[in-house]
Amino acid sequence: MSRFAKRIETMDGEVRKLKVLTESLVNAGIISFAGGAPGKEAYPFDQLREIADEVLRPGYLGYESLKYGSAIGMPELREQIRDVLLAPRGLKAELGEIMVTAGGIQPMNLLSQLFIDPGDCILVEKPSFVHTSMIYKMFGARLVPCEMDDDGLVMEDVEAKIKEYSPKFIYTVPTFQNPTGVTMSLERRKKLAGLAAQYDVIVVEDDPYREIRYSGETLPYIKSFDTSGNVVLANSFSKIFSPGARLGYIVADPAIIDKLCNIKLGTDTCTNTLAQCLAAEFFRRGYYPEHLRRLCELYRSRRDAMLRAIDASFPEGTRHTLPDGGYYTWVELPACLNASAMKGEIAEKLNICYGDGSIFYSEGTEPGSGTNCMRLNFSGPDEETIDTYIRRLGAFFCEKMEAIK
Amino acid sequence: MSRFAKRIETMDGEVRKLKVLTESLVNAGIISFAGGAPGKEAYPFDQLREIADEVLRPGYLGYESLKYGSAIGMPELREQIRDVLLAPRGLKAELGEIMVTAGGIQPMNLLSQLFIDPGDCILVEKPSFVHTSMIYKMFGARLVPCEMDDDGLVMEDVEAKIKEYSPKFIYTVPTFQNPTGVTMSLERRKKLAGLAAQYDVIVVEDDPYREIRYSGETLPYIKSFDTSGNVVLANSFSKIFSPGARLGYIVADPAIIDKLCNIKLGTDTCTNTLAQCLAAEFFRRGYYPEHLRRLCELYRSRRDAMLRAIDASFPEGTRHTLPDGGYYTWVELPACLNASAMKGEIAEKLNICYGDGSIFYSEGTEPGSGTNCMRLNFSGPDEETIDTYIRRLGAFFCEKMEAIK
Repeated sequence: MSRFAKRIETMDGEVRKLKVLTESLVNAGIISFAGGAPGKEAYPFDQLREIADEVLRPGYLGYESLKYGSAIGMPELREQIRDVLLAPRGLKAELGEIMVTAGGIQPMNLLSQLFIDPGDCILVEKPSFVHTSMIYKMFGARLVPCEMDDDGLVMEDVEAKIKEYSPKFIYTVPTFQNPTGVTMSLERRKKLAGLAAQYDVIVVEDDPYREIRYSGETLPYIKSFDTSGNVVLANSFSKIFSPGARLGYIVADPAIIDKLCNIKLGTDTCTNTLAQCLAAEFFRRGYYPEHLRRLCELYRSRRDAMLRAIDASFPEGTRHTLPDGGYYTWVELPACLNASAMKGEIAEKLNICYGDGSIFYSEGTEPGSGTNCMRLNFSGPDEETIDTYIRRLGAFFCEKMEAIK
Repeated sequence: MSRFAKRIETMDGEVRKLKVLTESLVNAGIISFAGGAPGKEAYPFDQLREIADEVLRPGYLGYESLKYGSAIGMPELREQIRDVLLAPRGLKAELGEIMVTAGGIQPMNLLSQLFIDPGDCILVEKPSFVHTSMIYKMFGARLVPCEMDDDGLVMEDVEAKIKEYSPKFIYTVPTFQNPTGVTMSLERRKKLAGLAAQYDVIVVEDDPYREIRYSGETLPYIKSFDTSGNVVLANSFSKIFSPGARLGYIVADPAIIDKLCNIKLGTDTCTNTLAQCLAAEFFRRGYYPEHLRRLCELYRSRRDAMLRAIDASFPEGTRHTLPDGGYYTWVELPACLNASAMKGEIAEKLNICYGDGSIFYSEGTEPGSGTNCMRLNFSGPDEETIDTYIRRLGAFFCEKMEAIK
């Protein structure tokens, strides 16, 4: 019947991987460590009900909560982004450098529309976030993974691959990386901004987890070291406010923002106006600091519960990251255990799902990469659930190890 | 600096045309007949405030108003679409055939992502909606305009062009067309669904104005005559609920919906959840019929005021459509008057803007097409404003005519 566009072929394989994560978000029947959603206790219902009652009136404080907005987004919200989320973290941005988006995934789609011709190369992290990989593949990009260590992307490898592949952009999640939880060091942040200038290449800094920090010091945005206009910062309100609000933003050179706004017009015209009003007022009324403190406390306990349960129950030889923040830990099981292959059995017998490591590896990595790894999310389930089910998972893996011996 | 994708070149020219319309939506300093926004009296603030107070609580009636949703959209909203907007208009659809989108423009972007490879041909109406033309161009499509008369698209011309160009799809706004206000006859709706089956070609039926009817009988959706699964219905809540809510929907064969949901995942993950809850409850509580009656009454008076003012003041030889509904009338001035060329002067001297006809014509039409035409919107300004400013516009054109003589 339908003659689909060529991009659909390259997209389909990646979509299957992505669905491991997204379907768990809407399937209530299973204990999910696969997702990336806030805990159900994390939503500011009371404040938003209070605000909705005021902004759902004609012209309250000048808000037009039910009308069309502009492609770049409401000035009131962009001001709050500038003053509350950027400036205090050392990033000075003008309003014309900030645009509002429909969540944190839309920036990747808009940037793909702006930059990617089929066959173009994008440098990504190894492993990298499967959802953005899927978008780049949807636009026909070739993904080239770069090495990571405990300080994030290895700059020597990035530089070598810039020279070899002339990429359209370099994609990184520098803080509490998805999927590993690793954070890029200060020195490397400076270096990456330097490479963007030196080689005239775009760096896309995707930073949705940065505010959710439990330990260690806040690091500056890569964007704050940008001297060339080549660093594009993308961020999301999904982890700090509400994912259903579908709010995010891009900070970039005005020439890039201008093109992105045109593309936004051709994508969905503008971002939901009521959501923008609610968020702008939430920040303007000063509700954010206490809300964030509460989130960090909630998730810190959950992280600790998860790491404790892994340490206590997983087979000897298991390694995991120690994330200072964010939503995930990355677990490397002993090489003889295949987390990808056991996924179905575990879902059936233990009623547990997780992000199996292999889905975070794209073309350009050795076949079988990440099969003994897992991304485990600790923001969603409560401490008791984490403790119970992670221990069951650990016992299951230990039994498998015994059987193999 | 940036090496943008090739699609950006083909997009830029169309964006300039589109901005004639969209910028007027956010520029409060001018009397605009250019836009396509609801009147400020048309928003159901009271009902939405009442509903927000209930759905902004955890789990009220099962709604999860701040969480991630699924790509296909909330079942509660899709049920309302099925039961209130489709079934009573003679279109039987299963839930799996209905997906929620971020407004009425997003369907065109998602369908473009699904179907268009650069160089593919799309049949459009002559004239056609500039915003969707811009999207098709953004994806590198070639637009081929088909003839229209007072009964909509001329089927003989459509059939000839299907044979000649093998288009990826045929795009039509069948009811109160944008920009002309013309409605496709029943017979032609049947015929177009038949052509979709006969030639195995997709028909995209974009129908945002259908509910806003002032006179004449409601006609069935083209989709209701679909026997091949080749007709895709796209619709919007912008004209009947709130454009800021960014809600729309697509009704299509499940195989198409499935692919569109994958693309939606890679575009913005899901549609704003709170907006979906508000709309679902608005329809479930039965507020829609009275709300729609009020809208139609409001806009009918404005349409009448506009047609009266045009008839009373525009130069002899002016023609305009008599729309039975929707937001626009299409005015054809005497050929010696160039509405495109006078646009700047009129904005400056009369503080009026309008959609000049030429922006609705794409490649494949004779140069100069539509320069003596205007799309005039009557949903936004109130009756008094319409009467005053349309008469001033008429007087201006009459003076110009005098000067030319």
